[in-house]
Amino acid sequence: MKRLLLAGAALALAPSPALADTLFENVDGISITPDGKVDRFAAMVVDDEGRITELLDFGDGPEGEIDYLEDMKGAHVVPGFVDSHAHVMALGLGTMTLDLSQTRSLEEALALIADYAAKYPERPWLLGHGWNQEQWGLGRFPTAAELDAVVGDRPVWLSRIDGHAGWANSAALAAAEITAETRDPVGGRILRIGNGREPAGVLIDAAMAPVDAAVPPPLPEDREQALFAAQKIFFEHGITAVADMGTSLADWMSYRRAGDAGWLQMRIMAYAGDLGEMLLIGGTGPTLWLYDDKLRMGGIKVWLDGALGSRGARLKTAYADDPANLGIDVTSGTQLRNIMSRASLDEFQVAIHAIGDAANAEALAAIDELAAEYPGERRWRIEHAQIVDPADIARFGKHDVIASMQPVHMTSDRLMAEARLGPDRLAGAYAWRAISEAGALLAFGSASPVEPVDVLAGLATAISRQDAAGEPAGGWMPEQRLSREQALAAYTAAGAYAGYAEGRFGSLQVGERADFVVLDNDPLLTSPEQLRNTRVLQTWVAGRRVFPAQ
Amino acid sequence: MKRLLLAGAALALAPSPALADTLFENVDGISITPDGKVDRFAAMVVDDEGRITELLDFGDGPEGEIDYLEDMKGAHVVPGFVDSHAHVMALGLGTMTLDLSQTRSLEEALALIADYAAKYPERPWLLGHGWNQEQWGLGRFPTAAELDAVVGDRPVWLSRIDGHAGWANSAALAAAEITAETRDPVGGRILRIGNGREPAGVLIDAAMAPVDAAVPPPLPEDREQALFAAQKIFFEHGITAVADMGTSLADWMSYRRAGDAGWLQMRIMAYAGDLGEMLLIGGTGPTLWLYDDKLRMGGIKVWLDGALGSRGARLKTAYADDPANLGIDVTSGTQLRNIMSRASLDEFQVAIHAIGDAANAEALAAIDELAAEYPGERRWRIEHAQIVDPADIARFGKHDVIASMQPVHMTSDRLMAEARLGPDRLAGAYAWRAISEAGALLAFGSASPVEPVDVLAGLATAISRQDAAGEPAGGWMPEQRLSREQALAAYTAAGAYAGYAEGRFGSLQVGERADFVVLDNDPLLTSPEQLRNTRVLQTWVAGRRVFPAQ
Repeated sequence: MKRLLLAGAALALAPSPALADTLFENVDGISITPDGKVDRFAAMVVDDEGRITELLDFGDGPEGEIDYLEDMKGAHVVPGFVDSHAHVMALGLGTMTLDLSQTRSLEEALALIADYAAKYPERPWLLGHGWNQEQWGLGRFPTAAELDAVVGDRPVWLSRIDGHAGWANSAALAAAEITAETRDPVGGRILRIGNGREPAGVLIDAAMAPVDAAVPPPLPEDREQALFAAQKIFFEHGITAVADMGTSLADWMSYRRAGDAGWLQMRIMAYAGDLGEMLLIGGTGPTLWLYDDKLRMGGIKVWLDGALGSRGARLKTAYADDPANLGIDVTSGTQLRNIMSRASLDEFQVAIHAIGDAANAEALAAIDELAAEYPGERRWRIEHAQIVDPADIARFGKHDVIASMQPVHMTSDRLMAEARLGPDRLAGAYAWRAISEAGALLAFGSASPVEPVDVLAGLATAISRQDAAGEPAGGWMPEQRLSREQALAAYTAAGAYAGYAEGRFGSLQVGERADFVVLDNDPLLTSPEQLRNTRVLQTWVAGRRVFPAQ
Repeated sequence: MKRLLLAGAALALAPSPALADTLFENVDGISITPDGKVDRFAAMVVDDEGRITELLDFGDGPEGEIDYLEDMKGAHVVPGFVDSHAHVMALGLGTMTLDLSQTRSLEEALALIADYAAKYPERPWLLGHGWNQEQWGLGRFPTAAELDAVVGDRPVWLSRIDGHAGWANSAALAAAEITAETRDPVGGRILRIGNGREPAGVLIDAAMAPVDAAVPPPLPEDREQALFAAQKIFFEHGITAVADMGTSLADWMSYRRAGDAGWLQMRIMAYAGDLGEMLLIGGTGPTLWLYDDKLRMGGIKVWLDGALGSRGARLKTAYADDPANLGIDVTSGTQLRNIMSRASLDEFQVAIHAIGDAANAEALAAIDELAAEYPGERRWRIEHAQIVDPADIARFGKHDVIASMQPVHMTSDRLMAEARLGPDRLAGAYAWRAISEAGALLAFGSASPVEPVDVLAGLATAISRQDAAGEPAGGWMPEQRLSREQALAAYTAAGAYAGYAEGRFGSLQVGERADFVVLDNDPLLTSPEQLRNTRVLQTWVAGRRVFPAQ
């Protein structure tokens, strides 16, 4: 029988004391709710586990005992940004491959590729990303022959800026055994040249898979380095949490190893890219929040269609600039419902990638059906929701749908969207305000590495509908502009809610972890131009500074 | 700039204090080293993390302050047992299937199967384990037709006691598409009947795979229940740590979920069953020790041959009772070396299943070659090492080989081994003492669920070479008996060392976790008969009692 000695009784029975409370004083702080309700505070107390225990108004003192003082010198403090749609490992691995996103012409790209090949003679494959034939003003896709002319000795494989097309040289096509005899796969297309059968070099959506499969997988040490690099990029941009859309088993294992080793500092809300992998990881349901709210496998990402740039987005009527083409069904309606059903059975969350108006209609119809079978709070997510038939917008208001959208897509895609859709189908394009007013919660993200992870640019776009150059004047479809508060909420508290993380982070409320960003401007009191030029001075996670690294 | 407030300085800067130290007094305690050196102690101080901070002799008092007292009333305390070869999930899942291990005849088994089918009409497959045609005195393997006579409406699949053969009814053979046209796979055999082509019902080693693959996988909730059941069984038998031999990805995920949820209380040293899965889990090397030393993926288990009962063990000359048969190469020598090389490259440990004398010679040869390429401490493990050519025994002394053996196999297999090998090949059978004297460290285990997890029976066998009935009189090859100290070390400290866990548990030394067992006898001062009847009264992990559950 266990017997308590009186000498140690008080210490042994007391709840584990907070070892150190820190008062962050002299703060110009903003708390925010998912629907954009703002509170201001002047100081905050954070306990040793990084949780906020008090938010104080100007002139008020803390109730508890304070061990440390941190003078913030009037800093503008907002909740740590939540990127609701990112590809963490792809962003990190991308830093280790050739970046073509800044090239302005095919010639410039080819020159960079040739330099890269000369610089890394030992690499068995040359990988790159970020090309955009629209940005080059090329008026067509590039070809394998153009790549062969600069690198003929080994495979070259370069993904388009949107990730929905890849450009291969002949060695890469050969490695993937893609020939004139290869048929287009379901959900993909092999562009053809010459006799109309020979592969041209660019592969769309599902047609990319054989080349992806032929690429030697990254080594575990490359993956560690990639995660570390991605985390650093997010922190530099004030992002403390991301929804990782399409987490593979290998990604998950990398995240766990980082968590186990203690260097996973960012928060990752993971959505598996495969049902079997989700079930393997989660078992009977979403995982617990691991590593002090740093990691959770919450559900599944389902790709319903492709992207607009590669004409893979599924449209109700054909592309204006490709009249025979309706886009691609990456997942059939039946498959979608089966996946949603299996996930919902065990309370996993479902995030549906839908870009075209037909895909969005299909996603909304499926949610409508599944919500009847699986009632209760499901937080169905539609990722992108870029092109929506105005007739469907009201349907976003049912079943608490979350619209996970990326403001910067509007500025990158605006002209391309006009070309793809023609002038009469734009009323429901990037329709943030309309979707929000229909009743859906907006959760904003970057879709990085498709777009840079620049939240300030996203905020500026969200309130102006203009790009970095201020184009177009007055904003593109300016009726879709959001208020500053709503835009900030979509990048913070709403993103946390969309990942079942409310109460853990995202709002800067008492009880949450103290994840916050120090900005050199007040984002609720600045012009779009100022917002775009606002700098992230510091990023803190759970009361500890992670940028600049300590 | 962070500024420390003087008021909280002492508390904030002091190392995290132990919240409660417990003195276990009135102990008849045994510490032991891997090579069997024993120390006695009378009391022990355990800190809040479950680590031993002091071991005290009779009459000595603790140096530090004590918060709790636990009067052990003179209990016999030894280190928690380490089972160096077990199949945790199979043991647990086995508790959820039909146990045939106690049946004494084919008729008795068939009656049990019929009852089980009637009891679970909704189960799509009927699964069971533990049959042994030797125990039935059948003189042959059972057939599908005999099973069909009792269950014809759905598949029945029953694994043999050693796990190296399975008995299917016709529905199970059909589900696995095993027909007269199916050839024997590499590393396996389909027993035939009638015209010599028709499958008879029993499948050996690799031939079991198609049926295993056709069985619906256990649901995640079944796996949780199985792990919980296995942990309970281990604790009831005083086992606090196991080497899990052949951990699958799904097993690993179950262990992690239990660890994440806080109910993984036993310690699992995991060895993956597949190289790709090991690398996926471990990445650049073995995982860290997770959950306060509860879980680690340390390396890989490689199956070199099958088992003796099913005549799958690889022999240098043919089976005495099957003169055309040399056994089965489950893994080729080349594959073995490739796996060992890949594992060793990243400091993963290699455990080689080798039962027959040819397999043991092959394992020793491979270790000899690989040790040259990968020098340093590798702790190469040979699992089972049951039948060793006496000419090879000295080779166990090189390269610090660990012989991971199961004493109870000797008593279960003795008569069968004599039949399989004939009288002239037994000199190196279950040769614990000879292998130990050659210089290998002995780590003992159960191979559960192949054998019961009864460590006391194992200790009694190890010092007597007799079975529970005291047979044979004077012991079988009594020169292979071990000392009590050596046997206890093989079930405790040596098992921890074999899993790179020395300093963490296994010895009851200062600095280790306080994992211990309370027995109703002193295992170093009792006869084999007393030892076999010794009871586990309590099991403690990290200073907390886990059996009887609190």
